Amino acid sequence: MIRPFVNELGDLQNKILEMGGLVETSIHNTIRSLVERDEKLMAGLWDNERRINQLDIDIDESATRLLALHQPVARDLRFITASIKINSDLERMGDLAVNLAQRSLSMLKRPPFRPLVDIPHMSKIVEAMVRRSLDAFVRRDAALAQNVVMSDDEVDDLKDSIYRELLELMETGEAPPGPAFDLIFIAHNLERVADHATNIAQDVLFLVKGVDVRHHHLS
Amino acid sequence: MIRPFVNELGDLQNKILEMGGLVETSIHNTIRSLVERDEKLMAGLWDNERRINQLDIDIDESATRLLALHQPVARDLRFITASIKINSDLERMGDLAVNLAQRSLSMLKRPPFRPLVDIPHMSKIVEAMVRRSLDAFVRRDAALAQNVVMSDDEVDDLKDSIYRELLELMETGEAPPGPAFDLIFIAHNLERVADHATNIAQDVLFLVKGVDVRHHHLS
Repeated sequence: MIRPFVNELGDLQNKILEMGGLVETSIHNTIRSLVERDEKLMAGLWDNERRINQLDIDIDESATRLLALHQPVARDLRFITASIKINSDLERMGDLAVNLAQRSLSMLKRPPFRPLVDIPHMSKIVEAMVRRSLDAFVRRDAALAQNVVMSDDEVDDLKDSIYRELLELMETGEAPPGPAFDLIFIAHNLERVADHATNIAQDVLFLVKGVDVRHHHLS
Repeated sequence: MIRPFVNELGDLQNKILEMGGLVETSIHNTIRSLVERDEKLMAGLWDNERRINQLDIDIDESATRLLALHQPVARDLRFITASIKINSDLERMGDLAVNLAQRSLSMLKRPPFRPLVDIPHMSKIVEAMVRRSLDAFVRRDAALAQNVVMSDDEVDDLKDSIYRELLELMETGEAPPGPAFDLIFIAHNLERVADHATNIAQDVLFLVKGVDVRHHHLS
């Protein structure tokens, strides 16, 4: 039985939402495990990663099948090409969540290092960007998408200030190189997650407005 | 006048090749400028970045138009969806080349720090991966694509050994934190470029064989 096109588009959207939820949960639990120094909080992460990889394949297959079978045009076509791109961003975000977890495990094996500079604060902003980029996708909400794009500058500034702070702590001998390197990587990977959320928001803007906002500054 | 479909596919492929050439040149010149301590070698980089961003938009527009106008199926459809994904990887690689250049400029402003550990060697492997992933795309050459996928492990190992070496040099006081951080970032960004080249190679394998090789180990 061939299912109605509109149902298939809905399924595609639900898979993307599931993937986004898994990414957000993985990042949230990783940073919590770092703050609470409890690696058990990362336990579900490897299952999440496997599921994300399966969804990546499923979404690409669904999108390609929809293009071939229904030959959509206009807004449906833009929705499907946006889904292919958002899928690719989410899959990378899943990989980044694994990198974050590996680096956090490395930190938890060392003696406690405090403070975690601005990492927990940065993570909160990044998690919200992930969630809002997908809310914007579901609701076709250009204002919310634009909000995500603007948060990206805040995240970049935070990463720069974390970098400067850690470099200073190392130069004065207050931070040993090992944990400082780990925290720099964690900040760097969180920034990359934010970049992917920004890509998703830009795809949403294109989907809603039909205007390509990449490589232009939004006011 | 509507141009023949096959010419439009050829144009799409040429734009992707142009983008790949710009990425490779930018990375090559950045690492050369670091080795020779001559920032003039990076002069063309900002023009390359602008051109890459324009090509990113052009390729997405062409691909979407081809899907809408010609409603291709089978291999042509796979070619166009592969182009959308390869375009997205190349655009990120262009951003990474800019990150590499910014970090290199920061290093050139400091007193010379030697040696550059295994960075020049790592860069050569990564540049070759970029070139070969696109050669594989043009020639629909699965063996060459598989070769790129396998090089990725070598790059990961190199990055790990550069990281360990720099950490040791810092712990013994032989490397100051500033340049060591810069080199870690450069290695990290080169590894990310290699990841994107690997994504492209996997898209080529899917295009040629119609088999999804993501998230599976190749023997």
